[in-house]
Amino acid sequence: FMSKLPNVGTTIFSVMSALAAQHKAINLSQGFPDFDCDEQLKRMVTEAMEEGYNQYAPMPGIMPLREVIASKIYSLYQQQVNPDTEITITPGGTYAIFTAIATCINPGDEVIIFEPAYDSYIPNVLVNGGVPVLIPLSFPDYTIDWSLVRSKITDRTKMIMINTPHNPTASILTAADIEALQDIVTAHNLLVLSDEVYEHLIFDGAQHLSILRYPELLQRSFVTFSFGKVFHNTGWKMGYCVAPAHLMAEYRKVHQYLCFSVSTPMQYGLSRYLQTPEHYLSLPAFYQQKRDYFLELMRDTRFTPLSSKGSYFQLMQYDRISDEGDKDFATRITKEFGVACIPVSAFYESAKDDHVVRFCFAKKRETLEQAAERLRKM
Amino acid sequence: FMSKLPNVGTTIFSVMSALAAQHKAINLSQGFPDFDCDEQLKRMVTEAMEEGYNQYAPMPGIMPLREVIASKIYSLYQQQVNPDTEITITPGGTYAIFTAIATCINPGDEVIIFEPAYDSYIPNVLVNGGVPVLIPLSFPDYTIDWSLVRSKITDRTKMIMINTPHNPTASILTAADIEALQDIVTAHNLLVLSDEVYEHLIFDGAQHLSILRYPELLQRSFVTFSFGKVFHNTGWKMGYCVAPAHLMAEYRKVHQYLCFSVSTPMQYGLSRYLQTPEHYLSLPAFYQQKRDYFLELMRDTRFTPLSSKGSYFQLMQYDRISDEGDKDFATRITKEFGVACIPVSAFYESAKDDHVVRFCFAKKRETLEQAAERLRKM
Ligand SMILES: CSCCC(=O)C(=O)O
Ligand SMILES: CSCCC(=O)C(=O)O
Repeated sequence: FMSKLPNVGTTIFSVMSALAAQHKAINLSQGFPDFDCDEQLKRMVTEAMEEGYNQYAPMPGIMPLREVIASKIYSLYQQQVNPDTEITITPGGTYAIFTAIATCINPGDEVIIFEPAYDSYIPNVLVNGGVPVLIPLSFPDYTIDWSLVRSKITDRTKMIMINTPHNPTASILTAADIEALQDIVTAHNLLVLSDEVYEHLIFDGAQHLSILRYPELLQRSFVTFSFGKVFHNTGWKMGYCVAPAHLMAEYRKVHQYLCFSVSTPMQYGLSRYLQTPEHYLSLPAFYQQKRDYFLELMRDTRFTPLSSKGSYFQLMQYDRISDEGDKDFATRITKEFGVACIPVSAFYESAKDDHVVRFCFAKKRETLEQAAERLRKM
Repeated sequence: FMSKLPNVGTTIFSVMSALAAQHKAINLSQGFPDFDCDEQLKRMVTEAMEEGYNQYAPMPGIMPLREVIASKIYSLYQQQVNPDTEITITPGGTYAIFTAIATCINPGDEVIIFEPAYDSYIPNVLVNGGVPVLIPLSFPDYTIDWSLVRSKITDRTKMIMINTPHNPTASILTAADIEALQDIVTAHNLLVLSDEVYEHLIFDGAQHLSILRYPELLQRSFVTFSFGKVFHNTGWKMGYCVAPAHLMAEYRKVHQYLCFSVSTPMQYGLSRYLQTPEHYLSLPAFYQQKRDYFLELMRDTRFTPLSSKGSYFQLMQYDRISDEGDKDFATRITKEFGVACIPVSAFYESAKDDHVVRFCFAKKRETLEQAAERLRKM
């Protein structure tokens, strides 16, 4: 049969993590911590299993988890979200995004995606028969040129996807961005899919401008979140989607037949862990310290940092001594210097290459120190 | 925006479970055990979390789990399956099915589905733009009329979905069925999607005729399995898909961008638990005993059992004293007699109603006794 994704290979994350393992390199490529999640959180999952929470959760998620998420949203973003009709628990953030696209994208619908883009966005649109409309972010700040966005709107445009804090660039949206977005989607009656999996990883006192803060915008938005990205357990594959009731009703029709429900003991564990706001309020400082330490360590290497405002990624321009593209460069330093990173060109459909690589700094101090020491040898 | 599933409501499972809770009825509707899974299995998950297996699993699943599944397949079905390229771990059986459909169904493709059908099949096809072609199983044995199948094949036919042991009817496919299926799909170059989530729940010494036993058929098949259905932990949402490498490569392209990977600690826990074949070899006897006990208890009620050859369901014809349809009947006995079941007409698109309801007997002896006692009062 005909492939729906003829041009798709293995994700760059799998490729670079495998290469790192093969060459015993320090793996700063795929985004995951090399330290463990909180013992207390694990214990809470164990307790839930012991208490017998091992059968199907309700399709949208267990109520205690949806309720504590609603409280968190209210206290952080001053928005009343109805846990009964506006929150659905998902097996991870990637699934939450796919399901939003599967819910509303029909063959021929255009979806605006900013590049560089997290690598699931384009295939998600293609599998559902949609047409990705790619708009580059402006190098080197990775800001959005909204007049360019306006010029790309057609009768077929259905949705704009945003991501803040942004993977891979570590940029964040500003209030002016949100205003421009709101103008456009209101004028053209578009949907918004806002990927906010790094909501708590934001630095230098900046506020996360979640779509959840903007009631008018929220009325036409799906907003997706991840527990793994913030609680250091990417392997649990837990996340959620927030949307107004009229959109969530359609989302749940797809979700209830896609995987029906999500791990019950993990939901109970997370619902109890989230009762303590300190568990997420401490995250900006925790990760900013890691970013700053990594930047300090990298100061006397041949890498020049770009601005990292959020997420757990740091982009670096490398000192170009030849025409070597970023993919070859990333492969070479993995093999020769034993540090794996991600070439940012992998997040573009086009051949665009700004000679920038992405490092994940969600690592122990020793790991960052060792990586920098190796890179200093270049 | 336009709903892709305008006719979809809440699943019958959620509806009946909610009704059961509301009326404090014994819930024999939604298929899940009312006893807990093995303490040893829970402990193995806890250990995996403690050992630090909390970050992303490899996209297709951890190798130890894929390897033990391959061994199981070899010993049960005498088939060599390559764990590297032919097995992918999924967040449950329902997800495994959706992903196979998303992988190969394009708008306009016809998919043959037998009715009554598990309720996710039709929406899964619709979300992907496909056209469900519904063929009724012959009442009361729920066998397949293969000449009817032949008559429904068109140029657009892409796939035939089968399910053995079958939910909701508890029927199983025979060797003659498999032969007829193989003839048809070979002649017309079709794909097969075989839902075998109840593989170990099969009675009276019958052998489970997995598609995995038939190398030629397997070359064009996706075969889906569930851990939750067999290890009494439906809430963990763990399953897997087996397919030949050329189909699995396409399946993984969708999976890697749909949820990327599946709970790492649960995968480690299951991989260790599966080292002991007794954990699944004991299941046919375990569930047959429950079926037989339930049948004995129901002997002096006004229900007439149909044949239950596999799964953990028992269909019953009820003594029709009026024109009451099975949905009204199921609602009424939930409210009046305190026992919830599933009306089999809910598994038909058409208005077909054979006055049959489905009971789940994956319950403790006391639960079955109490339910029968209540139903005897009718
Ligand atoms: C799903 S693997 C990729 C993890 C990640 O988000 C990243 O490295 O960007
Ligand atoms: C996913 S809830 C439905 C459980 C089940 O398989 C059934 O009751 O048939």
